[in-house]
Amino acid sequence: MGFPVPVGFKLAAVYCGLKTSGEDKLDLSLITCDRNATAAGVYTTNLVFAAPVGLDRARTPSDKIRAIVINSGNANACTGERGDQDAQRMAELAAASCGATADQALVLSTGIIGVFLPMEKVEAGVRDATPRLASDEASLVAAARGMLTTDSTHKLANKSLQVAGQTVQITGMAKGAAMIGPKMATMLGLILTDAAISPADAQRLLSFAVEDTFNCISVDGHMSTNDTVLLVASGAAGNKPLAGADLEAFGKALHQVCGDLAKAIPADGEGATHLVTIQVTGCASVDAARQIAKVVSESALVKTAIAGADPNWGRIVSAAGYANVPFDPAKVGLRVNGVTLYDRGAPVAFDRVAASKSIRENRDTSIELSFGEGEARARFWTTDLTAEYVRLNADYTT
Amino acid sequence: MGFPVPVGFKLAAVYCGLKTSGEDKLDLSLITCDRNATAAGVYTTNLVFAAPVGLDRARTPSDKIRAIVINSGNANACTGERGDQDAQRMAELAAASCGATADQALVLSTGIIGVFLPMEKVEAGVRDATPRLASDEASLVAAARGMLTTDSTHKLANKSLQVAGQTVQITGMAKGAAMIGPKMATMLGLILTDAAISPADAQRLLSFAVEDTFNCISVDGHMSTNDTVLLVASGAAGNKPLAGADLEAFGKALHQVCGDLAKAIPADGEGATHLVTIQVTGCASVDAARQIAKVVSESALVKTAIAGADPNWGRIVSAAGYANVPFDPAKVGLRVNGVTLYDRGAPVAFDRVAASKSIRENRDTSIELSFGEGEARARFWTTDLTAEYVRLNADYTT
Repeated sequence: MGFPVPVGFKLAAVYCGLKTSGEDKLDLSLITCDRNATAAGVYTTNLVFAAPVGLDRARTPSDKIRAIVINSGNANACTGERGDQDAQRMAELAAASCGATADQALVLSTGIIGVFLPMEKVEAGVRDATPRLASDEASLVAAARGMLTTDSTHKLANKSLQVAGQTVQITGMAKGAAMIGPKMATMLGLILTDAAISPADAQRLLSFAVEDTFNCISVDGHMSTNDTVLLVASGAAGNKPLAGADLEAFGKALHQVCGDLAKAIPADGEGATHLVTIQVTGCASVDAARQIAKVVSESALVKTAIAGADPNWGRIVSAAGYANVPFDPAKVGLRVNGVTLYDRGAPVAFDRVAASKSIRENRDTSIELSFGEGEARARFWTTDLTAEYVRLNADYTT
Repeated sequence: MGFPVPVGFKLAAVYCGLKTSGEDKLDLSLITCDRNATAAGVYTTNLVFAAPVGLDRARTPSDKIRAIVINSGNANACTGERGDQDAQRMAELAAASCGATADQALVLSTGIIGVFLPMEKVEAGVRDATPRLASDEASLVAAARGMLTTDSTHKLANKSLQVAGQTVQITGMAKGAAMIGPKMATMLGLILTDAAISPADAQRLLSFAVEDTFNCISVDGHMSTNDTVLLVASGAAGNKPLAGADLEAFGKALHQVCGDLAKAIPADGEGATHLVTIQVTGCASVDAARQIAKVVSESALVKTAIAGADPNWGRIVSAAGYANVPFDPAKVGLRVNGVTLYDRGAPVAFDRVAASKSIRENRDTSIELSFGEGEARARFWTTDLTAEYVRLNADYTT
């Protein structure tokens, strides 16, 4: 059925010379809205944040956004005051493309750090993109491609739902394949919807969804300078601003779109051969469960074991043990791909050959850790760690 | 000049069949003292800790230790009550080798997790080692080899000093090459001295030294179930128990021995091609400086950049930015191998080819981060991250 463009939006993408790796790659995406849109944002918590993060953070939540411009190939990070000016100029160019004022645009950048944006290329890019703006699926896909860096494929997700008799669409795009850690490392996300929603509700629902999705993925635990997820709502579906059960249903659908996009990032992890889902259950609090899941998902020894198809429960259990979360080791249980490896604090006999085969022959790996300390749970997605990841990251300059 | 055995100690090592990787490797070391020795210990803070850690923790500080037995090839971790009984039996065997009582021995184990110790082999090992006990350097080297697992070489360090007209020796051995994270992951250390020192002072000086040495190294950030550093003091040098300036001088020398041993661990890091020293200066507190150094030392992106000889200041500065330590990004400075890459919050022009060449051609890499927030500093040692590390850890079962 494809991915519909929510009503009110147009998109386009062009190559304007920001990426040095070939003219076949799009590197500037422009998205406009035909009316003032609600916008909310969640950003990197890195103290060293890029110029566009500072700009967007100051402008969201908002009820008057008209344009979003995204470039890849250059992060506009660690670029000082000139970087801030360049981000503002990008916003001005994007806003002008649809007759809006400079403060009605948001900016996303990703790519190399510490290099000034070649603004004449950005300007030409926005100029070239403007006449191509359209609301068909091809334009959506092009915009999703224009934000990619080392990703092997674009990432889209959609969910539609009925609110008060109206159908509303939530369609999102994301990029990210490495420098990915909890708190969204080098990850951009843009979620468009035609629902009408207040800025405060948009911000609250987005923050809630991100916490459990984009903030629960890890490729290498490295939080970047540019992480941003935006939700932009045109209101063109014609519904009354969401409230009550409709608002709740919208929040669930938004959560699902964020989850689909978030999971697609480690699934495209650089050099990865496994997408690992870590389920932590039986904790005293969600924070405790997330902390354990995060530590396990970032253990190089756990990740290399999965790469080697080794059902190495010792590395998993010992990683949980240094998460700084109190638990009784005698109550710990562990299953990998559905096979119990560890129960009530002790290893159990299992068919090692079959367990290894199950890891080797499936791209998806499931790690389930249980603690018997309470009812709280968390889920993290991560990758394995392969020699190919190292090769890619030893040779690529970010 | 070699490594002298402190007066009062004898050592031996044998192969008793615990390691499966070949009969040429020693796997059981026995150390005895001809009188009651002072002993102090610092242990893993992992909630999932091995049986010998529980045993030693309960017995230190002590003023009556007579024997230490170390085995490699089996960690006696995640082995429940039977593991505790086996550790106690090991202590009993070691103590009996020098006519001491069962509670006068300490135990160290390292190797595979979750497998019961074959106690008949351990018993035969202690029996075979006993007649070989000697105080020459060859026996010291053998004991240092008997504790190794994936290490490429044994690790010894020595410092002698004069206290009250007496020469005292501090000689230490350590093992560890991976599963190494701050808080001492899969790391064993045994430091022997012939100085006389009270148990309380021994514990205080050892804890202080470990905090700044063994707890400031990282290969993969994975804290193990078995980490232990012991200090055992025979008092056979004949000095009065250390006090005042003598105690302080001893503490400094102990710190130096711990530092030499700690640094030797990442220097022997599995698959590593660089030993990376991270100096963090200008922080508001030592804890803040250590936290930043730890996060940088564990960043897979920083470590792969070093492996690729890439002077990638962006990865280093952005790793510092997510350490959860407040600082003003506009005051950050960075030097790699003495070359300034980043100054007052902005990248500076530098000779990229020369900087890369300097990383490629030197095994030692220096990363100096400065913050201008205060006077506190910290130093971490880590390795680069190579494809060879991944290969070793994807294929080896711990």
